[in-house]
Amino acid sequence: MHLEKPAEVLLMGPGPSPVHERVLEAMGQHTLGHLDPDFLSIMNEAVDLLRFVFETENQTTFPVSGTGSAGMEAALVNMVEPGDEVIVGVNGVFGQRMADVASRCGAEVIEVNADWGCPIDPEDIEKKLDANPGVKLVGIVHAETSTGVHQPLEDIVEMTHNHEALILVDAVTSLGGLPVEVDRRKLDIAYSGNQKCLGAPPGLAPITFGERAMEKFKQRKSKVQSWYLDLSFLTRYWGEERFYHHTAPINMIYALYEALTMIKEEGLEERYDRHRLNSGAMVAGLKALGVEPVVEDQYRLPSLITVWIPGDVDDFSVRSRLRRDDLIEIGGGLGPFKGKAWRVGLMGNGSNRTNVEKLLKALGGILNDMGHKCSVEDALFEANQLYQQQQ
Amino acid sequence: MHLEKPAEVLLMGPGPSPVHERVLEAMGQHTLGHLDPDFLSIMNEAVDLLRFVFETENQTTFPVSGTGSAGMEAALVNMVEPGDEVIVGVNGVFGQRMADVASRCGAEVIEVNADWGCPIDPEDIEKKLDANPGVKLVGIVHAETSTGVHQPLEDIVEMTHNHEALILVDAVTSLGGLPVEVDRRKLDIAYSGNQKCLGAPPGLAPITFGERAMEKFKQRKSKVQSWYLDLSFLTRYWGEERFYHHTAPINMIYALYEALTMIKEEGLEERYDRHRLNSGAMVAGLKALGVEPVVEDQYRLPSLITVWIPGDVDDFSVRSRLRRDDLIEIGGGLGPFKGKAWRVGLMGNGSNRTNVEKLLKALGGILNDMGHKCSVEDALFEANQLYQQQQ
Repeated sequence: MHLEKPAEVLLMGPGPSPVHERVLEAMGQHTLGHLDPDFLSIMNEAVDLLRFVFETENQTTFPVSGTGSAGMEAALVNMVEPGDEVIVGVNGVFGQRMADVASRCGAEVIEVNADWGCPIDPEDIEKKLDANPGVKLVGIVHAETSTGVHQPLEDIVEMTHNHEALILVDAVTSLGGLPVEVDRRKLDIAYSGNQKCLGAPPGLAPITFGERAMEKFKQRKSKVQSWYLDLSFLTRYWGEERFYHHTAPINMIYALYEALTMIKEEGLEERYDRHRLNSGAMVAGLKALGVEPVVEDQYRLPSLITVWIPGDVDDFSVRSRLRRDDLIEIGGGLGPFKGKAWRVGLMGNGSNRTNVEKLLKALGGILNDMGHKCSVEDALFEANQLYQQQQ
Repeated sequence: MHLEKPAEVLLMGPGPSPVHERVLEAMGQHTLGHLDPDFLSIMNEAVDLLRFVFETENQTTFPVSGTGSAGMEAALVNMVEPGDEVIVGVNGVFGQRMADVASRCGAEVIEVNADWGCPIDPEDIEKKLDANPGVKLVGIVHAETSTGVHQPLEDIVEMTHNHEALILVDAVTSLGGLPVEVDRRKLDIAYSGNQKCLGAPPGLAPITFGERAMEKFKQRKSKVQSWYLDLSFLTRYWGEERFYHHTAPINMIYALYEALTMIKEEGLEERYDRHRLNSGAMVAGLKALGVEPVVEDQYRLPSLITVWIPGDVDDFSVRSRLRRDDLIEIGGGLGPFKGKAWRVGLMGNGSNRTNVEKLLKALGGILNDMGHKCSVEDALFEANQLYQQQQ
C-alpha cells in the first residue's frame, strides 16, 4: 500500500463516526460481481437488517448508492412532481437543504421555520396544512445535525395524515442511535446515512418507502427527473427481479451488512440506552467545564450534542489542538452557529464511556491552557455520577 | 467479522474488475473525517492522480460520490438546460441511457443510431449538426460496455467543435485501459467509473470538465435540477475552499487513491499495451474455441470483448458452470444481445496472461462437455502465438 496510513483520529464530530474493525475488515473483502449469486444473498440479508433497524416491514427498503444527501434527493425526486405543494420544517442546515432539493424537483415549497436549536412547533405545521389543503407531503428532520435538535414526530405525523399528505423523515443522525420506528410511527418515507449511528463508512444512504408512498409513486404523471435515483429501476434491482440498473458499491454493502449485524447483536433498545447514557454523562461533564449545551434537555439528541463555545476561547484554535495533540475530532458550527458552537458526536461505536472521558480530559486541558479556567476532575466526577446512577 | 468471506471469484465480466490487495488494504484503513487536514491532502493527491489518468490539466476534476451512472448524470444535469438540443450517439445500452438522462434534464434529444456492435458513423453526427445548428452538446460513448465497441473520437470532436457545441464522452470502460487523452483530444467533459480499468471497487465516478464546459455552466439561467450533483457546490468542496457539501465516501477515496497510484507506477503506455496484448491473445484463443468476436478488429475494445455464444450451447448453463466450478465470472448480453453474446472483461489488474489462459481452459472444458467440440490446446497455442510475437 502506497497510501500513507491514516492517523487513528477519534471521530467525535457530526459524522463520520468511528468505524469498528469488524466493519473495516468486511469492507476489505474480495469484490464480488454485482449480480453474483453470493452477492445477491448479501443484498437480501442487508435489506432485512435495514428493515430491522428502521423497524419496518416495508418491501421498498434498500441503501441508495450515494451518501446521506443522495438519500434526501432520492426521497424527494421520487415523491415530488412539479407543482406539488410541499411543507418543509426548517430549523437548521438540513431542513434548508430539504427545502432546496424539493424546490429543484418543482415543488411549491412552504417553509415552516423555527429558531436554530429549537424544534419545529407542530402547531405551525398544522396552520400551514389548514391554509394549504392541497399539500402532498410534509418533510421534517428527525435529528438536525447542524443544531443537535431531536424533533418530536408523533403530532406532526398525525396532522399530516389527517390532511391526506405523506410524511417524509430525515433520519440521517438518528437511525441506529435513537428510535426511528417507521411502522409504529407510520412514517411514509425515511432515509439515513451510513456514517452516523449505523457506524459504517460514508457512501450509502439507507431508505424506506411505505405503501402510501409507493401508491403516490405509481400515480406519477411525469418521469422522475433523476435516472440514477428513479425508484422504478431501483425497486427492480433491489427486488426479486434483480434487473440491472447500476453497479452497486459492493464493498460498501459488505461494510453496511457488518455494521447492521453488530446493531442486531447489540439489540436496538440496548443501543438506544447506551446512546442516552453516554450523552447524559457527556453533557454533565461539559457543563462542569463551563461548556453549556445549546439545546434544552427534552429536545437534545443523544447522538449529537451542540454546545456554546466559551466566550474566552477561539473556536479554531481549540479544535486544531484537539485534533493535533489529542487526535480527537469534534465539529465546528454551521451557518449562524459558525464560530459560536461546537458539535460533539457520540454515535454508533463512538458512544462509550472511554470516549466521553477522553474528550472531557482533552478539552478541559486545552480550555485551561487557553485561559478558560475549569476543572477536569469536576467534569469527570459529574460524568461518573451519571454512570453510577445507571448501575 | 460476521459477513461470510466472499468467494474469490475471478471477475472477467463487464465490471467490477478484480481489485488488487493493495487497493482493498487501502480501503480498509481507519476512516478520517471528511474535513480532516490529512484527508484533504489525500483528496488533493487523488485529484492530481485523476488528472494524470485523464491526461488533463482541467481544474474541475474529481470523483463523483456515486457509481459510473452517477457520473453520467452529473455530466448531463450540469451541462444541459431545459430546451437545449443535444445529440446522443446510440449504439448500445449506455448510449440509450445517456439519451434518457439527457431528456430527463429537459434536453431535446436528437439520437444518432448505429447497429449494436458497430461504432457511430461520424458523418451521421455531422448531418444532424448541420440540420440542427443550435445543438449545444454531443454525447458519445467511448467504450460501449454493452457491445464492446471502441468508438473513434477524433472526427466527432472536430465536427462538434466546428459547430460550437460541447463534446461529452462516456469513458466508463476506457479510462485507465486505453487512451482517453482529454486535453489532446479536446474533450469538454468526460466521466468514468472506479470499477473497470481503474481497478478500484465500484462507488465513485471520476469526472472532468474543461474550460468551455465550465463557461457554459457559468452561463446557466436555471438551477441544476440535482442538488447532490450541482457543480457549483462540488467545485467549492473539491476546490481550495473545502466548503462543506456532503460527506465524501472517505474509504472509497482511499481505494481510488491506491488504484490510481498503481496506474502511475505502471505507466499509462505500458498499461495500454498490456490491455491490448492480453485482449489480442484472448480473442485469438476464443476464436480457436469457435467463439467468434462480435466487433470487427479495428473497433474492438481491449478492455471488453463481446463474443457470440456458439449455437450449440446454452448461455446461462455455461456461465453458471464457469462461476460454480471454476470461480470465474463472465458477463451475459444485454438488450438484443441477451442470450446471444457473452461479455469478457480484461480490465485493470484483470488483464493478464494467467487470466487469459485460465478462462480459455475453463471455458473450453465446459464447451466440450456441453457438446461444442473444440480444442483447448489449440486455443492456448493461438494465445501463446500473440505473446511470442510481442517478445
